[in-house]
Amino acid sequence: MLNYKMLIAYDGTRYDGWQRQDNTGDTIQGKLEQVLSAYYGQPVEVSGSGRTDAGVHALEQVVNFHEPAEGKGEGKNRAGELQEYLNHYLPQDIRVNRVEKADPRFHARLSAKSKIYEYRIDCGQVARVFERKYLTRIEEPLDIEAMKAGARLAIGTHDFKSFCSNKRLKKSAVRTLHSIDIDKNDGILTIRYHGDGFLYNMVRILTGTLIEMGRGKREPEEMTAILEAADRAAAGYTAPPQGLFLVKVFYLGSK
Amino acid sequence: MLNYKMLIAYDGTRYDGWQRQDNTGDTIQGKLEQVLSAYYGQPVEVSGSGRTDAGVHALEQVVNFHEPAEGKGEGKNRAGELQEYLNHYLPQDIRVNRVEKADPRFHARLSAKSKIYEYRIDCGQVARVFERKYLTRIEEPLDIEAMKAGARLAIGTHDFKSFCSNKRLKKSAVRTLHSIDIDKNDGILTIRYHGDGFLYNMVRILTGTLIEMGRGKREPEEMTAILEAADRAAAGYTAPPQGLFLVKVFYLGSK
Repeated sequence: MLNYKMLIAYDGTRYDGWQRQDNTGDTIQGKLEQVLSAYYGQPVEVSGSGRTDAGVHALEQVVNFHEPAEGKGEGKNRAGELQEYLNHYLPQDIRVNRVEKADPRFHARLSAKSKIYEYRIDCGQVARVFERKYLTRIEEPLDIEAMKAGARLAIGTHDFKSFCSNKRLKKSAVRTLHSIDIDKNDGILTIRYHGDGFLYNMVRILTGTLIEMGRGKREPEEMTAILEAADRAAAGYTAPPQGLFLVKVFYLGSK
Repeated sequence: MLNYKMLIAYDGTRYDGWQRQDNTGDTIQGKLEQVLSAYYGQPVEVSGSGRTDAGVHALEQVVNFHEPAEGKGEGKNRAGELQEYLNHYLPQDIRVNRVEKADPRFHARLSAKSKIYEYRIDCGQVARVFERKYLTRIEEPLDIEAMKAGARLAIGTHDFKSFCSNKRLKKSAVRTLHSIDIDKNDGILTIRYHGDGFLYNMVRILTGTLIEMGRGKREPEEMTAILEAADRAAAGYTAPPQGLFLVKVFYLGSK
């Protein structure tokens, strides 16, 4: 009953997101479970650190799974064999960058302490050709200082209900954003969010709201009132998925 | 009858190469001429610095065209207007990075002094996800010193007939390779060719031959005999197009 931890990168373009669905649609979780179940000859379920929406990418999603009870017996290099098997049978837009034995109590979602998401916007004079599927294009000028001012008001511990698309959310929407870093480099604007947890669509709605501030459609100071409203309608639009990356998941003791 | 010079980037993945075809197939030249002809309301032909094969990319292809005689009249910022129009109507995998008035005698192909092509190979332990369409994946280890030794023997002025797929080539196959630089960085092997001209498939056959040397299937010293054979069958395989980029075209006076 060994517990394995895996680091996965994926291009979310053609997927219906991370989470397995019973009906139709390709999902990252579904693909992983399909190949792992073929390897073990019996059903295997995996847990991800969190869901990513349809079209969202991951540089480093963290996943764990427990080997089936009647597994493959003792393997000298089971982790290496698993990695090779997965990368052989998975589609090229999903890659397994590492497999390692984990503590039996390790759970990719429940053990996670914080996460980094990055949203990338192409603001260059001419749109990028080769990264076009991994950037959101905005032609209108963006006032970065206004975006930074708005972002500063969102940092900290707040009820982020205004930044959640799930209307039936019953649990607490209180989360802590440790930082939001905004940088522009060679025409690419990057918004980097580090937080202890993220609600459904939270990064995309925060990004859409910051973009509206950058375009002068909202004042940065509105951020406080938006948070206080605790109402999705108070915030900005949901920025499209293709500019969003899950970058890193932190666990106790991880760098 | 103004002459315009344009710098174009394209992702060649879904195109049948640069050169316009009379029958079917999407080509970069065809797309450009289609949009330019719509702009002027009459047929416009463009010249590229050279053809790129189906599936080959360009970071900076150089193109020129002469405005139709009954053009648009005097325009204050015709170059800027053209660039905007082209980027609006061209597909997103072709972008116009610059448009400028050129000397009436400037010709993208005939005036070119030299070109740089780059071939990119993914040799990392796990294949890259996001650049996968712009890299050729090679899992077997490559001996870079052997590749460099083979490349050194190809530098200079030679008859490159062994490195040309066009069997009906009637003109001279003598070309000068100024340099071949081979570097490996973060799992990506880059082979950069600078030469005064390149025959049909020349970069891809040179690359295939160097890869065979890197894999120990050929000795680097064979390069001399391959060149002397003046026979396509003497050289290595034609490396696939997706790792190849036209990087830069040099003209008299250009940096």
